[in-house]
Amino acid sequence: MKKRLFTPGPTPIPETVMLKMAEPIIHHRNPEFNEVTTRVNKNLKYLFQTEQPVITLTCSGTGGVESTFVSLFSPGDKVISCNGGKFGERWVKMPKVYGLNVVEIKIEWGKAPTEEQILSALKANPDAKAVYLTHSETSTGAATDVKALAKIIRENSNALVCVDGITAVGAHEMRFDEWGIDVCVTGSQKGLMIPPGLAFVALSKRAVAAIETSKMPRFYLDLKRALKSYQDNDTPWTPAVSLVIGVDAALQKIVDEGIENVWSRHKRLAGAIRAGVSSIGLKLFSEFPSFAVTPVWVPEGVEWKSFNKILKGKYGITIAGGQDDFTGKIFRISHLGYYDELDMIMMIGALELTLKESGYKFDLGAGVKGLLQALAAK
Amino acid sequence: MKKRLFTPGPTPIPETVMLKMAEPIIHHRNPEFNEVTTRVNKNLKYLFQTEQPVITLTCSGTGGVESTFVSLFSPGDKVISCNGGKFGERWVKMPKVYGLNVVEIKIEWGKAPTEEQILSALKANPDAKAVYLTHSETSTGAATDVKALAKIIRENSNALVCVDGITAVGAHEMRFDEWGIDVCVTGSQKGLMIPPGLAFVALSKRAVAAIETSKMPRFYLDLKRALKSYQDNDTPWTPAVSLVIGVDAALQKIVDEGIENVWSRHKRLAGAIRAGVSSIGLKLFSEFPSFAVTPVWVPEGVEWKSFNKILKGKYGITIAGGQDDFTGKIFRISHLGYYDELDMIMMIGALELTLKESGYKFDLGAGVKGLLQALAAK
Repeated sequence: MKKRLFTPGPTPIPETVMLKMAEPIIHHRNPEFNEVTTRVNKNLKYLFQTEQPVITLTCSGTGGVESTFVSLFSPGDKVISCNGGKFGERWVKMPKVYGLNVVEIKIEWGKAPTEEQILSALKANPDAKAVYLTHSETSTGAATDVKALAKIIRENSNALVCVDGITAVGAHEMRFDEWGIDVCVTGSQKGLMIPPGLAFVALSKRAVAAIETSKMPRFYLDLKRALKSYQDNDTPWTPAVSLVIGVDAALQKIVDEGIENVWSRHKRLAGAIRAGVSSIGLKLFSEFPSFAVTPVWVPEGVEWKSFNKILKGKYGITIAGGQDDFTGKIFRISHLGYYDELDMIMMIGALELTLKESGYKFDLGAGVKGLLQALAAK
Repeated sequence: MKKRLFTPGPTPIPETVMLKMAEPIIHHRNPEFNEVTTRVNKNLKYLFQTEQPVITLTCSGTGGVESTFVSLFSPGDKVISCNGGKFGERWVKMPKVYGLNVVEIKIEWGKAPTEEQILSALKANPDAKAVYLTHSETSTGAATDVKALAKIIRENSNALVCVDGITAVGAHEMRFDEWGIDVCVTGSQKGLMIPPGLAFVALSKRAVAAIETSKMPRFYLDLKRALKSYQDNDTPWTPAVSLVIGVDAALQKIVDEGIENVWSRHKRLAGAIRAGVSSIGLKLFSEFPSFAVTPVWVPEGVEWKSFNKILKGKYGITIAGGQDDFTGKIFRISHLGYYDELDMIMMIGALELTLKESGYKFDLGAGVKGLLQALAAK
């Protein structure tokens, strides 16, 4: 059986990238590898639309976000953190561990922080050093309007605008410099289409300045050390060489397609999936659905586990279930990374067949029809 | 030109392992991956010769060692750290960052800590919570007699025996349980023959108990969280999936060869390389040479940079140079991981040709002859 992955990380890896990573390994302190990192560092700037440094760390996205908490602040510093899902929750817990004074903006799952919520938090906490936003909350598929909120934060405070872009970068428009973002983190197994193991951290001039004055114990995830090595396109510790080689090949694909085209492809595929599921009466979970992942309520009368068993066991398709309180209640279809229109047709087709076998009553074929009409409308 | 890597990490990756890692990626929270991690966790126990947990972390070896400092101790705790090279030095610096009280045993580069040094440090510091030893110091190629020192530490203190086994595991005998080791860390790009990006941490019952009482801020590198997920062969954060799949294949090779055979192969190859370089009058740098890497003085009259340019540019061989004070003065030939006798013949042959072209006077062929005689003597 052919197996197909529709999960929001790991995402499918282009065959050419897999084969590139399978070439004999090279040493990281050698000119051949320096050529790779030089190109990677240049193309990461293009990905984030920045002239500022984008640091590569060997860790998961969680480690990437941690590097910002331990490298930019000092114990006792106040940060505002938006929590609208499993990852937002993590960005509340994590800074507390490091003695930061965390102001939590709690958001209902499936929703995004509003301008009013941010403004009121800033007003109540004029000493906040940063606001952490989750661009696309993987657990809920809710997208945050980072551009608008960054503007509000910039106009009303000196707080750094810190973005968890882990499942957003590559799917959602991200203009790091133009929007005045200070920190943006992503992971390798998301829009970058390679296996997990690397995190990328873009840093504004203000963020770099904050790193200079931060007093927080750190070593492996120290961005100050990383920035120093970055000057020579190097890393302080041994990097995940094969993954860096993979990201080089993947970034080249993004450069070739053009970042605006990559963003609009994600928007188009997300819209098509939404049209597909809506056409068969399924309900979307999120108020502001992400372009990376579409969360859908499991329809009444359908049991998630047996539904998923058919989808996976009979059709070879892996999607993501709900998390925490929404386990068994929602499922999440990812269209982040290496996907095209035809993948979406296949996905909705398999979903329809699986729903039919699960006893859900609907007009078989209506989903794919709705999806095709959405695609044709563009 | 064929390119050949003789560096102490990354080390060459078996072709079958490279191809395994190039297969379509799977999701980490799925039964297929759980089968992989279950097998990896079982075979890691075999590698370390332990019945205790061996945790897999997505980071370099440095991150692996850091996980032990931040997870086993509390600020103010005293640890004894042996520093006989670039990595030993790091294990002195790193715990200081986290507020540990570090007693440094300084060792001349190329030498290893003696029983007397350890005993006297333990006597002067009866409150030491741990002693950190570097099994094979990569920068100097010096091996520490971990078995003997662990016995001394166990008999004379309650200090935990913590071993940086980053370049040693797979090359040097390691009997974690039998020798009474409490912590042993290794990296993926060493004896495990896969690309960098994973660290492995074996933990004794005493180490696990220390983790229970440790009060140190930590999140990504938290071994307590990792141990909890380990019960289900899972990880708290997204692991480097493709590397874990690689390590599964690599561990199977080690199981098939037999760990005692892997150790004796490394001992045999190291002895052969030493015989080879000695036969042409080169001098060894280390008093107790490691079985992972052999450091050799650059002979008088030979200029390292132009020598290395020939070796690399004409023969495609990458070796490691000296570090810090020994840059340009020594070079290091690795035989750690996926090497056999014939690789050693090739290495010494290329070394001889390069030395000849670099103006060094010797009997061309004597090196390979010495190496063959050493191999035949076994």
